[in-house]
Amino acid sequence: MSDSTPRHDGRAVDQLRDIRITRNWLDHAEGSVLVEFGRTRVLCAASFTEGVPRWRKGSGLGWVTAEYAMLPRSTNTRSDRESVKGKIGGRTHEISRLVGRSLRSIVDMKQLGENSIVLDCDVLQADGGTRTAAITGAYVALVDAIETGRAAGHLKRTATPLTGSVSAVSVGIVGGRPVLDLDYVEDVDAETDMNVVMTGDGRFVEVQGTAEGDPFDRGLLDGLLDLAMGGCAELTRLQQAALDAPAREVQR
Amino acid sequence: MSDSTPRHDGRAVDQLRDIRITRNWLDHAEGSVLVEFGRTRVLCAASFTEGVPRWRKGSGLGWVTAEYAMLPRSTNTRSDRESVKGKIGGRTHEISRLVGRSLRSIVDMKQLGENSIVLDCDVLQADGGTRTAAITGAYVALVDAIETGRAAGHLKRTATPLTGSVSAVSVGIVGGRPVLDLDYVEDVDAETDMNVVMTGDGRFVEVQGTAEGDPFDRGLLDGLLDLAMGGCAELTRLQQAALDAPAREVQR
Amino acid sequence: MSDSTPRHDGRAVDQLRDIRITRNWLDHAEGSVLVEFGRTRVLCAASFTEGVPRWRKGSGLGWVTAEYAMLPRSTNTRSDRESVKGKIGGRTHEISRLVGRSLRSIVDMKQLGENSIVLDCDVLQADGGTRTAAITGAYVALVDAIETGRAAGHLKRTATPLTGSVSAVSVGIVGGRPVLDLDYVEDVDAETDMNVVMTGDGRFVEVQGTAEGDPFDRGLLDGLLDLAMGGCAELTRLQQAALDAPAREVQR
Amino acid sequence: MSDSTPRHDGRAVDQLRDIRITRNWLDHAEGSVLVEFGRTRVLCAASFTEGVPRWRKGSGLGWVTAEYAMLPRSTNTRSDRESVKGKIGGRTHEISRLVGRSLRSIVDMKQLGENSIVLDCDVLQADGGTRTAAITGAYVALVDAIETGRAAGHLKRTATPLTGSVSAVSVGIVGGRPVLDLDYVEDVDAETDMNVVMTGDGRFVEVQGTAEGDPFDRGLLDGLLDLAMGGCAELTRLQQAALDAPAREVQR
Amino acid sequence: MSDSTPRHDGRAVDQLRDIRITRNWLDHAEGSVLVEFGRTRVLCAASFTEGVPRWRKGSGLGWVTAEYAMLPRSTNTRSDRESVKGKIGGRTHEISRLVGRSLRSIVDMKQLGENSIVLDCDVLQADGGTRTAAITGAYVALVDAIETGRAAGHLKRTATPLTGSVSAVSVGIVGGRPVLDLDYVEDVDAETDMNVVMTGDGRFVEVQGTAEGDPFDRGLLDGLLDLAMGGCAELTRLQQAALDAPAREVQR
Amino acid sequence: MSDSTPRHDGRAVDQLRDIRITRNWLDHAEGSVLVEFGRTRVLCAASFTEGVPRWRKGSGLGWVTAEYAMLPRSTNTRSDRESVKGKIGGRTHEISRLVGRSLRSIVDMKQLGENSIVLDCDVLQADGGTRTAAITGAYVALVDAIETGRAAGHLKRTATPLTGSVSAVSVGIVGGRPVLDLDYVEDVDAETDMNVVMTGDGRFVEVQGTAEGDPFDRGLLDGLLDLAMGGCAELTRLQQAALDAPAREVQR
Repeated sequence: MSDSTPRHDGRAVDQLRDIRITRNWLDHAEGSVLVEFGRTRVLCAASFTEGVPRWRKGSGLGWVTAEYAMLPRSTNTRSDRESVKGKIGGRTHEISRLVGRSLRSIVDMKQLGENSIVLDCDVLQADGGTRTAAITGAYVALVDAIETGRAAGHLKRTATPLTGSVSAVSVGIVGGRPVLDLDYVEDVDAETDMNVVMTGDGRFVEVQGTAEGDPFDRGLLDGLLDLAMGGCAELTRLQQAALDAPAREVQR
Repeated sequence: MSDSTPRHDGRAVDQLRDIRITRNWLDHAEGSVLVEFGRTRVLCAASFTEGVPRWRKGSGLGWVTAEYAMLPRSTNTRSDRESVKGKIGGRTHEISRLVGRSLRSIVDMKQLGENSIVLDCDVLQADGGTRTAAITGAYVALVDAIETGRAAGHLKRTATPLTGSVSAVSVGIVGGRPVLDLDYVEDVDAETDMNVVMTGDGRFVEVQGTAEGDPFDRGLLDGLLDLAMGGCAELTRLQQAALDAPAREVQR
Repeated sequence: MSDSTPRHDGRAVDQLRDIRITRNWLDHAEGSVLVEFGRTRVLCAASFTEGVPRWRKGSGLGWVTAEYAMLPRSTNTRSDRESVKGKIGGRTHEISRLVGRSLRSIVDMKQLGENSIVLDCDVLQADGGTRTAAITGAYVALVDAIETGRAAGHLKRTATPLTGSVSAVSVGIVGGRPVLDLDYVEDVDAETDMNVVMTGDGRFVEVQGTAEGDPFDRGLLDGLLDLAMGGCAELTRLQQAALDAPAREVQR
Repeated sequence: MSDSTPRHDGRAVDQLRDIRITRNWLDHAEGSVLVEFGRTRVLCAASFTEGVPRWRKGSGLGWVTAEYAMLPRSTNTRSDRESVKGKIGGRTHEISRLVGRSLRSIVDMKQLGENSIVLDCDVLQADGGTRTAAITGAYVALVDAIETGRAAGHLKRTATPLTGSVSAVSVGIVGGRPVLDLDYVEDVDAETDMNVVMTGDGRFVEVQGTAEGDPFDRGLLDGLLDLAMGGCAELTRLQQAALDAPAREVQR
Repeated sequence: MSDSTPRHDGRAVDQLRDIRITRNWLDHAEGSVLVEFGRTRVLCAASFTEGVPRWRKGSGLGWVTAEYAMLPRSTNTRSDRESVKGKIGGRTHEISRLVGRSLRSIVDMKQLGENSIVLDCDVLQADGGTRTAAITGAYVALVDAIETGRAAGHLKRTATPLTGSVSAVSVGIVGGRPVLDLDYVEDVDAETDMNVVMTGDGRFVEVQGTAEGDPFDRGLLDGLLDLAMGGCAELTRLQQAALDAPAREVQR
Repeated sequence: MSDSTPRHDGRAVDQLRDIRITRNWLDHAEGSVLVEFGRTRVLCAASFTEGVPRWRKGSGLGWVTAEYAMLPRSTNTRSDRESVKGKIGGRTHEISRLVGRSLRSIVDMKQLGENSIVLDCDVLQADGGTRTAAITGAYVALVDAIETGRAAGHLKRTATPLTGSVSAVSVGIVGGRPVLDLDYVEDVDAETDMNVVMTGDGRFVEVQGTAEGDPFDRGLLDGLLDLAMGGCAELTRLQQAALDAPAREVQR
């Protein structure tokens, strides 16, 4: 397939889906975002609390962690609840750990001080790319939670707990060519699927590529990385725009 | 306190909060509703599938069940996920069972035939009355799921699986007087808290009253039942109005 | 069916089964009762211990909680053990919570001081009404446990931790008419099943009514409440009689 | 200590506690026994059902299994429920397996045919020797369950599923000398504790001896075995006497 | 079968399999042994840590415990992992408890001081007698762990935490005659299976005999005990020989 | 640090640790390998069974899956067993899934036919790179298991279920420069850690890179990929050498 043939939904190979970042979607959470990558819809709630887990007490360092989950009917056919099954599946574990590591990569724990932030990323509707949407939205919720914590006096006025921004996007080889930000239909067809997490200044935090079908060679790998760099740069711009809008203005 | 003193949010004692019923909030589910009782926000997804659980096979009867859960940061302070704890708490169990029984009370399982409907009620934001909002919203999602199932040919054109409608509301004794549809602030203060589930034609499906403080006498109990009857009648009208709107018109 | 037609076991509609309350059935427990409602047989053990759970320490308040369970062969056909299944079912959770709330409703936690009482209600044989028998028996065991704790010096001589007594009974609509204290055969047939918990002075602690078949109207609801008030008054008299007997006199 | 010094409760070294075997303590179970070894009280329910577990289907063989558990306040201080903890402890597992093996040792599975018997042994009160009381009582319940199954036509009239009887007793070294049927006080003091399961004709099914304190030599071991043989012979007589009484005559 | 007929693998009735005890099989553990009884291969790791569990703090006493497990493909056909099933089976529980008790029988907890030793016995390959191999190997690992703890200064130079040595062997009745150290083929055929744990000076720590087929009489029991005494004496010599070899000399 | 400065253990930046691949380490498994990357020691057992999981029956396709686990004392300090904790941790889940996907990438499920292979990778000793050692060793065990299955007649003589070979290695940025095959000491220090799985013909199956410290730029990423390609090529040669040796010749 040539690079100029449009994708099944009309997008160019290097084009993101429609991205919407709605801040303050919840009333209670210190930061919250409803993030949408096309039909994928993830609710990110950032909970800021004073204090840290026991094993970190007295260290002077903060803590950031994340939990990812899907509502049972976020998907095309209903899945059983992990709470009902009584255990969390491997995929959920994996993604929760990924989201946590990604957010921690841009937090200076010393500047955060002994405060904790939990990022709950709940997929309300899934159409591919839920983990990358979660990371991208969680960053914005994290920024708001830190400012809420600061306003409540838990952080010094001059503290700078963020060393940068972070976003994530999926890339994959579909029909033999690299494409950006796969939706569910493309994801099913992809020979290779890669999730890339990057900082706002263009460095890599995570690269996770998997050959679903045939193994891929170095050339295709380089092509995927190029696409991901462009996608993350665009997401960084959209995160910044959402954060520049007056707080609580963008409403559900 | 006299009956005419306004409540902390300005409502009359027999006044519901603002109720919003948004149909088709999800793209995949056969029926879905985002129901709001004031700031309480519950996402109800109805999944229609052919076939019934093994123990019911060959009976010619359908099956309707429900699962209720709260997102960890739906509440004022974050709660641990039940999936992470590895077990479902007693309260979750209780409410899931209540929602299921309530919905089954207006379904004719013979007319439904060997089809199953699961109602997932996930609380996105909690401000009191989440179980009554869940029942009220789930009914609307159920109606849509049945029509989706009929359109897909899983139900006869002439089947009438619904014997009526169902809604629910909380009532309680706050400051010594019965009030309708308590929010979280009132719920905390209530001496008695009662959840009432009723059919559209004014009969009772469930009455669950608990004295949180002093036990209550028969007179107060009668007063609470009166209030609940009025509240459910109003909710029935709002459910009908939502269902009368053209499908997919009311959008997020 | 007319109100004067006798029930399947010969009782009048407003007649309790034979009630037996045997105190001190166990040697170790601070209070213990084998309570029988006809063939329903529940062993209630009240464990009094100094101290309270961590979250209540330093409050000066006591704590009362309950756990309900059924032996696997208490029922007509054997049920799997919840310990073997590795989790407690929704029904068990619900009833444990109900018993605990009911008993707490007549305890003055300040007068109890920082002491804990756990009420274990284990159903040895089930024939309908196990939860109401559990509450009725647990109250008597609780009284004995408090006196044992007082004798051991954990309570002041003058402390009055009990604000009243509590008992419970089931009522239901069977064959179209309200009846009191359903056994298993009636329970299966009941269109509506209601459990009512009341204090000795005739006020309500819990009202839990469920339409198993057709929803019920206000008139039937009022009839059920009337029956329950009479039943609980009788149970209160029987509890008092058991407590008036010399301790350890009534023996297995 | 000389062999003629009486034990703390006045018994001779080779004397059992008072043994009571009450048949038909339950109304639903196919066989049931309340067995008492002094203050130790175990309820044994035998459930007879047609059919066998899946892995045994078509073999023509029956199946016998057992579950042992303690009520939370059977003991001196309350223990947490295994159902609440979500898992069964090692001791419970061990004893359940022991009871099952012991009963199976005297069942001819071919004669039982494809029927199953589950023996539930629930300790209502514990004062040492609960597992040996459980085995001794379960045998009697098993006999009754087999006759109930035969009466219901699930067994041939001429089938002889029992190859003998089985009973069990504990022995131990207390104060340097072997004693029979230890109660809790002796059990705590014992240097060595041994449980012995024997058939009615004096052969061994299980021998489980543990040095709690100092290891024991062959001479003491031989002395313990002698005592156990005498105790089991006496228990065999008591089981037979209970079974010889007219069914349902001995009542609670 | 006469006592002089050789066994299926050519051994005499009172002959052990080839026993190999390889010390220091692991680099990290304070003591470690790969013990082999013929094809049965168990890795015993002894972890020495300062401090004791919370319930033992301040007692001045040490703690020794053990965990036994089988790798999924240690057996002839693969078994499911207990970690995947989410619970430990009864057999694993039983053996872990047996190994712990056996090792504790020769430890003077006062001399050990407030230090803990955990013995992990993981069966890499199973061919009968895994629990007895585990005990026999764990003793050697325990000795090494104590010396490592002493060298690290956690024990006084003069402390003597060991009161003796411990080993274990299985005996059983196969083909009507007692034999020593059964392998898997014999274990399957055995009418009676007995595990015996003894101290180096010839006293009994545990005797666990089970009739798998016919119950056994006192004469056979005595014969089994004789055989076990001889087997444990030989194992004691082999343990000592392994410990006499220069540390780290015997290598994988 | 310059590229020619030796590493803490004297290795060059592009040098593997000593690799040992011992085939047939177990007697029962259809294929088994003890693989060592320096002091990291992983036992890989491949279990070949006829038939496939239920969801795959009748498809004509085979199935390959993997389970990874660490022995509690494989590490420097003892970890709790996942079977005792009652749940599998996220890291274990992640690695099991990775090993399974990696092996499946070179299996032609059609050629395998309706047979299943489970790869159990148990870490006996951990010193960095356990997951890459597991994949590298599991491939060799898989080859042997397939040949065992073929010899047993479960595969056609002419079936070619393997489309190639697979190996894995870790690379990372330590002291600012990319190095190959990190041991534990380096792993702890690494700013970035990447695991790369490749086929024998030099294509990528998985690329999983994580910035533990600072995010990394594209240049460093390219350098890591270069190193990994060299390492996997060498591992491929060592796998082939092990497989070329006569079966059962290389012994423990």
